[in-house]
Amino acid sequence: MGKKLVTREEDYSKWYNELVVKADLAENSAVRGCMIIKPYGYAIWEKMQAQLDKMFKDTGHVNAYFPLFVPKSLFEAEEKNAEGFAKECAIVTHYRLQNDPDNKGKLRVDPNAKLEEELIIRPTSEAIIWNTYKNWIQSYRDLPILINQWANVVRWEMRTRLFLRTAEFLWQEGHTAHETKNEAIEETKMINDLYAEFAENFMSMPVIKGIKSKNETFAGAETTYCIEALMQDGKALQAGTSHFLGQNFAKAFDVKFADRQGKLQYVWATSWGVSSRLMGALIMTHSDDHGLVLPPKLAPFQVVIVPIYKNEDELNEISSVAETLKSELIKNNISVKFDTRDTIRPGQKFAQHEIQGVPVRIAIGPKDLQNKTVEIARRDNLTKDYIKHDLATDHVIHLLDEIQSNLLQRALKYRNENITRVDTFDEFKKVLENKGGFISAHWDGSSETENKIKELTKATIRCIPETDDNESGNCVFSGNPSGQRVLFAKAY
Amino acid sequence: MGKKLVTREEDYSKWYNELVVKADLAENSAVRGCMIIKPYGYAIWEKMQAQLDKMFKDTGHVNAYFPLFVPKSLFEAEEKNAEGFAKECAIVTHYRLQNDPDNKGKLRVDPNAKLEEELIIRPTSEAIIWNTYKNWIQSYRDLPILINQWANVVRWEMRTRLFLRTAEFLWQEGHTAHETKNEAIEETKMINDLYAEFAENFMSMPVIKGIKSKNETFAGAETTYCIEALMQDGKALQAGTSHFLGQNFAKAFDVKFADRQGKLQYVWATSWGVSSRLMGALIMTHSDDHGLVLPPKLAPFQVVIVPIYKNEDELNEISSVAETLKSELIKNNISVKFDTRDTIRPGQKFAQHEIQGVPVRIAIGPKDLQNKTVEIARRDNLTKDYIKHDLATDHVIHLLDEIQSNLLQRALKYRNENITRVDTFDEFKKVLENKGGFISAHWDGSSETENKIKELTKATIRCIPETDDNESGNCVFSGNPSGQRVLFAKAY
Repeated sequence: MGKKLVTREEDYSKWYNELVVKADLAENSAVRGCMIIKPYGYAIWEKMQAQLDKMFKDTGHVNAYFPLFVPKSLFEAEEKNAEGFAKECAIVTHYRLQNDPDNKGKLRVDPNAKLEEELIIRPTSEAIIWNTYKNWIQSYRDLPILINQWANVVRWEMRTRLFLRTAEFLWQEGHTAHETKNEAIEETKMINDLYAEFAENFMSMPVIKGIKSKNETFAGAETTYCIEALMQDGKALQAGTSHFLGQNFAKAFDVKFADRQGKLQYVWATSWGVSSRLMGALIMTHSDDHGLVLPPKLAPFQVVIVPIYKNEDELNEISSVAETLKSELIKNNISVKFDTRDTIRPGQKFAQHEIQGVPVRIAIGPKDLQNKTVEIARRDNLTKDYIKHDLATDHVIHLLDEIQSNLLQRALKYRNENITRVDTFDEFKKVLENKGGFISAHWDGSSETENKIKELTKATIRCIPETDDNESGNCVFSGNPSGQRVLFAKAY
Repeated sequence: MGKKLVTREEDYSKWYNELVVKADLAENSAVRGCMIIKPYGYAIWEKMQAQLDKMFKDTGHVNAYFPLFVPKSLFEAEEKNAEGFAKECAIVTHYRLQNDPDNKGKLRVDPNAKLEEELIIRPTSEAIIWNTYKNWIQSYRDLPILINQWANVVRWEMRTRLFLRTAEFLWQEGHTAHETKNEAIEETKMINDLYAEFAENFMSMPVIKGIKSKNETFAGAETTYCIEALMQDGKALQAGTSHFLGQNFAKAFDVKFADRQGKLQYVWATSWGVSSRLMGALIMTHSDDHGLVLPPKLAPFQVVIVPIYKNEDELNEISSVAETLKSELIKNNISVKFDTRDTIRPGQKFAQHEIQGVPVRIAIGPKDLQNKTVEIARRDNLTKDYIKHDLATDHVIHLLDEIQSNLLQRALKYRNENITRVDTFDEFKKVLENKGGFISAHWDGSSETENKIKELTKATIRCIPETDDNESGNCVFSGNPSGQRVLFAKAY
């Protein structure tokens, strides 16, 4: 298989699909819409998980596990939530196969093994969890409950793309229960801030924090907070959401607690999640026509060392230098792979590490031995340096920090250049068509206007951004008064 | 809810069920046979996962993720495997709900959203994985593949028990592909040894390594290696299995590779797994009539410090001692909880930490302040000591090691006392009825004999143990010649 990708310019969508497969991140499976996350892709996801998990625990959350299945009667209890997901549910109706009498060696569903009540495979777990919390909560002393779960969920999407939209995906979902409305809102915001911090400090991906319009609010929530990122093709990507659920689920599942005055009250709720979709966001934020570009903090290997040699003796000399450097780097908590495979040539190794986005590549050849240098190449900007052996460790430590921050700065520059303020609907359409990106425009706050703009342009309100600047104006579409600009974009 | 358990003597099965719930480990859910793993139980599972994951990676394995669903046509490809699981499969037949025209506010399965091909929820992933490996393997250079996955699986069991047998459970499943038969067998054995090491060094649970008889071999495997543990009620528990799959799956999915001579060969396979069932094994190996007993290496908190005070001033003084001790312990990588809750009394805290099996409890009261001591209580043998402040850290470090090893020694002693050699079938039945445990007996190697013994006694062959002692003899049932004793037991 050739490793060369189609360029972003030629076909952005194809570039993405090719990159995911050629960088060995994921591939489509035999099951419609379900992906296989390959070891290299999964290693990046594990790094994300580990960091997020730490951040959740540092803010007082604990993990638990709830069932994959939701009985239909529980699923439909919170009507808006049920309505929001009903059209994309995988449904288990039977629990046994039997030999097919008409086809030797084949099996068929046993018609006698029909479930009394169908089971929905969780598209999200509010229903099963709030039905459980009901038994855990009697008094304010039982609150707050701050639980997260790492799980797979299924949403039967019609058009799927690796990582970005798959029928089954991996995610974490937090489900918290609180005594007061205010505490629940604070939790919702705190988690949205946590997501933003993760995106910027670990993924090097700038995000805009805000809330969703009613149209885009999670089914069953009062308010959805979100972080929105901008991809290199000018389309927005929702990277994480944190929902203030009010008392909707408490009411649907009758979850009440005795408050400090002994009065029965409904519990206040939040839920929040990020998913393996973040892998898609990570890829599209940084990668280039040569392949994946990874921020060092999420790279399975931060450094790869490639020996360039003609014979065993050279290899031995190079290995001695490489192993010394490797162990020094490891002492500094840097993950290093010394790529000694003898089945492929150095050029092929270079190509592989490039397409797989290893942040720093070190090459050591005979000339380097003579000069007591190593060649250090950066994946982010494709530059190279020759560094003396005794300076190499410090150089790499510094370089990894620089790459991490350079990626964020580069993405931030691009993102900021692609937020365009417009004041007329003509401008709106022109910018959307010619430039893309976020369009910052006044909006009259009505779903009607939002729907019409969507119909006409395919752009939606990505978020009503957090801002201190309450510039008022007139809706770009209806001319009605508006208290704040919002961000429109076409979105993944 | 009263925290007092029924005793093991009174009703072992009830004791287990009560303990799991009262120690806040897990509970039954609204979904038949599916459990909710509560935060305290999940924290123990996370410790197990982290350690196993490290051991898998240290032996060259990487993680990946394959789909939850297996299309029926793939599921049935390896006939023995399919036959083995067909009767306990959850089956997805539809992908959409719709409003129920006869019941306002209710949903029903949309009859127009029937899948063309039913999807089986994975009871194990050989089928979907080998269908994938087919595309990954062309040459010996693509081998070995050493992949593990952490996942949920579903087996529609009729009789379920928390952790021990649930319709959905959590597990890891390794699936490896090899060039030679020998390499695959070595992998299978290496993993079985790894499981035994984990059981003994981390769970403090002694296990017997061996292979399964044909009757008990995994559906689709050539040979199943296993580790078998003995619970306190004299029943055996299969704690982990590692399967040499031969070329069965390679043949079913047509997975061939060009060997070093350029000749096409079928690939050799292994698969292996341990599951959340280990939680049940852990509980039943160590716990007592007071509740859970945890080996320090798997305890969410290894040490809990409880202050005993009458007023704010006392609490402040105690807190200062406690915080100093806590930070010293944390420096030594010991996890500590300082339980300052003011909503419950010290006695209630003691009861909770006891039933939850915290290995070491430290209490500090006014007298301790005077004497510059702390009271240190061991959960494993319920003894207490008063230790001077300046010796407390070293004492606890040492104590945790001692508890870890004491638990193993205690369980080993019990296990060894409960392996009984018998030479007649009358003795066999008597021991099984009156004493239980493993029965070491000669067996003629036939499934027929094994089946008859099972019919008559409910005991099965737990394993043909690894042994250098090839004592020959005569089958305890048929009198036919036997080359080795095997272990029978009633089992979970």
